[in-house]
Amino acid sequence: MSDTDGAATDGLTDLGDGGAGAAEGGGRREGRRARGEGGGRAARQAKRAGAAGKAPAYISRKIGYFEVFDEEGLDLIERNADRVLKEVGIEFRGDEETLQIWRDAGADVRGERVHFEPGMLKQIIQQSAPSCITQHARNPERTVKMGDGHTVLVPAYGPPFVRCLDKGRRYATIEDFRNFVKLAYMSPGLHHSGGTLCEPVDLPVNKRHLDMVYSHLRYSDKPFMGSVTAPERAQDTVDMAKIAFGEEFVDQNCVVMNLINANSPMVWDDTMLGALKVYARNNQGCVISPFILAGAMSPVTVLGTLTQLYAEALSGMALTQLVRPGAPVIFGTFASSISMQSGAPTFGSPEPSLVLYGAAQLARRLGVPFRSGGGLCGAKISDAQAAYEAANTLQTAALGGVNFMLHTAGWLEGGLVMGYEKFVMDADQAAMIGRLLAGPDMSENGQAMDAIFEVGPGQHYLGCAHTQRNFEDAFYRSPLADNNSFEQWDAEGGLDMTARANAYWKKLLQQYEAPAIDPGVLEALDAFVAERKAAAPDSNV
Amino acid sequence: MSDTDGAATDGLTDLGDGGAGAAEGGGRREGRRARGEGGGRAARQAKRAGAAGKAPAYISRKIGYFEVFDEEGLDLIERNADRVLKEVGIEFRGDEETLQIWRDAGADVRGERVHFEPGMLKQIIQQSAPSCITQHARNPERTVKMGDGHTVLVPAYGPPFVRCLDKGRRYATIEDFRNFVKLAYMSPGLHHSGGTLCEPVDLPVNKRHLDMVYSHLRYSDKPFMGSVTAPERAQDTVDMAKIAFGEEFVDQNCVVMNLINANSPMVWDDTMLGALKVYARNNQGCVISPFILAGAMSPVTVLGTLTQLYAEALSGMALTQLVRPGAPVIFGTFASSISMQSGAPTFGSPEPSLVLYGAAQLARRLGVPFRSGGGLCGAKISDAQAAYEAANTLQTAALGGVNFMLHTAGWLEGGLVMGYEKFVMDADQAAMIGRLLAGPDMSENGQAMDAIFEVGPGQHYLGCAHTQRNFEDAFYRSPLADNNSFEQWDAEGGLDMTARANAYWKKLLQQYEAPAIDPGVLEALDAFVAERKAAAPDSNV
Repeated sequence: MSDTDGAATDGLTDLGDGGAGAAEGGGRREGRRARGEGGGRAARQAKRAGAAGKAPAYISRKIGYFEVFDEEGLDLIERNADRVLKEVGIEFRGDEETLQIWRDAGADVRGERVHFEPGMLKQIIQQSAPSCITQHARNPERTVKMGDGHTVLVPAYGPPFVRCLDKGRRYATIEDFRNFVKLAYMSPGLHHSGGTLCEPVDLPVNKRHLDMVYSHLRYSDKPFMGSVTAPERAQDTVDMAKIAFGEEFVDQNCVVMNLINANSPMVWDDTMLGALKVYARNNQGCVISPFILAGAMSPVTVLGTLTQLYAEALSGMALTQLVRPGAPVIFGTFASSISMQSGAPTFGSPEPSLVLYGAAQLARRLGVPFRSGGGLCGAKISDAQAAYEAANTLQTAALGGVNFMLHTAGWLEGGLVMGYEKFVMDADQAAMIGRLLAGPDMSENGQAMDAIFEVGPGQHYLGCAHTQRNFEDAFYRSPLADNNSFEQWDAEGGLDMTARANAYWKKLLQQYEAPAIDPGVLEALDAFVAERKAAAPDSNV
Repeated sequence: MSDTDGAATDGLTDLGDGGAGAAEGGGRREGRRARGEGGGRAARQAKRAGAAGKAPAYISRKIGYFEVFDEEGLDLIERNADRVLKEVGIEFRGDEETLQIWRDAGADVRGERVHFEPGMLKQIIQQSAPSCITQHARNPERTVKMGDGHTVLVPAYGPPFVRCLDKGRRYATIEDFRNFVKLAYMSPGLHHSGGTLCEPVDLPVNKRHLDMVYSHLRYSDKPFMGSVTAPERAQDTVDMAKIAFGEEFVDQNCVVMNLINANSPMVWDDTMLGALKVYARNNQGCVISPFILAGAMSPVTVLGTLTQLYAEALSGMALTQLVRPGAPVIFGTFASSISMQSGAPTFGSPEPSLVLYGAAQLARRLGVPFRSGGGLCGAKISDAQAAYEAANTLQTAALGGVNFMLHTAGWLEGGLVMGYEKFVMDADQAAMIGRLLAGPDMSENGQAMDAIFEVGPGQHYLGCAHTQRNFEDAFYRSPLADNNSFEQWDAEGGLDMTARANAYWKKLLQQYEAPAIDPGVLEALDAFVAERKAAAPDSNV
């Protein structure tokens, strides 16, 4: 641990401020709203809690990583992965162009199965893949870095359902999608607008990506993710990004990240390959992610899973670099395990944590940013199971050194459900992670020797000069935790955290104000979406 | 990460087995019981889940520590602590004998304030304090080690209230106390019976320690903690231990651990000093623990808090070594922070995590075992707040390298309440920590190359030979997590984790069978308790 630099100290203060603003939002603020009191100090504080406030755009880590393997262990995994790549090979299905790319690169292509000489993929990646990616946001103050100790916390991705305390579980709509864009925008602990925050199933499959990308650009100014469900939808994403950022800027800069999942074990399908090629060609970011439920899609052991996912990730990452050397790419993995009794996926348990720690080490050794983790859980509701499992995964991802933490907030039911209450609860945890990774303040003020000397044995620190100078930002303040006495908590209705979270996300949505957008850009986006929607009939494939 | 040795692999397997037995205990087992089905496979499994099963007696860590400070940072804290010890000093109140011990050791004693030359206390400790403590259990198979990578997970300590889903929050009784002894005994993730699991407030203050120590010895065979509320109660504890273990054995071996809290900042009171001296003289273990709510009892910063608690811990630990060189002693700290708005203690937040990581490093550098952490929370009920906060603290304690993890299970409401549901939920987390710290299996079977070669691209691993060989113990199985589909969960009543935990602890208590005890020992314990109770009138001071 070295001294924190000025920027980090600023980051700490800012997070504290965000927390402070938000801290009033729990049960007490709910009461205030019920009495019709708005505006004034509370409103100003709430504003500060929003994205428009001073929260840092991303985390710059000031403490080390938790590492489980030594170099020998990593060598073993790499050697085994090399054997898998050479002797078993990886399948690239239904995409002749990709097979030709591999032939041209000197791989051994037999049908759709591609075999690689040991070290070949690593060399391709290390030749051109950046160790750190800057993803530009529509608001330059929200531009993020991923890699080299920089971390970005991103909402959950992909759920077809949503859940809230009022209406229970139901299919997601575009209105839900917009709500989660707004909540991510308002959450100081989240640095990114995410991608498919939920599937707006009220819209046709072949057009909903237009509304999703539009919503990210219109209702937030944080960076976002694009569509990967078909190459032409990936192209739409790039085209809309060009409207927002300018054609040349997009060709030279990363403005959209995209989730490219392997079909584990050891298969890439044509949909993912199509999207990968569109984004890489356009110099946009790919998160190459083996999606693994160990025991079903990989061996039941930590090392076996690491071996396979490393082989898969190497093949996907190298492909991006062959399509366009230097294209931004992230070593991703979603790795959990299954119940060997029921086959159901399980979360927050120790084995996937070990996989995550190992994969993060492999990514750092390779020299690329890493994606994994998030607030994962198998719970159906935002109860203690949801929280234990989410916290276990979030802590692991934070300490292991994830740079792009997809699924940080909202995830329920193995990813089938985006939860409104879970979202703000996880976002609270996200803000804490920002604080944790900023590390301790080593300055003279941090050492607080004046306080110890002023107070002395048997006294308390509440009123001393050092405390007075520092109390505003000293400790993270959760907007959702209730730390009052039992009597006070009971008198205020004895609400559990989910009930407080319910009041909190409604408050945030009420206070939401859209960030400014250039009217010309907005008009062009509207026109693009209208034109693309008119160009083809609705379809649900 | 080096190769796991045979013992560790056994440990892994055993924990898995415990988990497996327990895994049936959730919603499904509840259903089974409702249909009147008992015995058979379920009963055998439940038995295995109990302490009588094969669960390892303690954790032998196979992975590294998460460390936040470099040597320079630790030097800075030590230098600052040395300045505090010399220039501010520590107060030892109302205990002339202790002051004389310090005078004899060459400290500068002015009234009750004692000042120490830099390095003096460290030298005293390093001369004789053991780096690893073996605490003997009544059942030799349950004897534990603490320090040098060995970790013991211990229930919560001290709550005057209990809570369960059926009866809510109420004062604790000796019946509750016995129940928690039994639950700790039945929990494979917990290695220790703890101490004041809850305050049996239905018994007189001056006699309840007799029933507590008796309950630990009678209803469990795991190691336990003694009374510290008065020197004569500490002596009663030692005397009862001598009945159970033999007089000479107790003098030569640690059979009871004891919690000695500092009155932070920088004060030791006569009660704690009295108990410390009794236990150290009898060669029994002292956990020297500054009890700190940062912002009130220490500065509002991480470094300031570490400086003060290190100074306090050094002074207490050195005292044990002056009383009896070589007496077992643990560097403890309970460190959380307070809300600077309300003064309420807060838990699971980032700043106390940084304090814990730093304190663990200071303890390792000093060469003594370390105590901190647990399933701490400020939540009133076992909701998501309880779980997020507990998981954050448990993960921090596990990765930071706590050797004696007091408060692992049951803690609610800042320690005022022992929760029945929270207890079994935390104990589930404890078992996962055991798995996590055992690390990955680096063996050929762990590498699973045969599985990858057998299965190949696009297939699944469920039926392959490697999976068949390993599925029983591959993944930790929680007895409380519900990973079923939404539809199945809903059909089974849509219970939250707390409701499932309620059924589970009742099941455990139903299945409880007392461990064997020598009839002569039991008779002597009964006689001792009866005699001591008769020797003085009841008193509530």
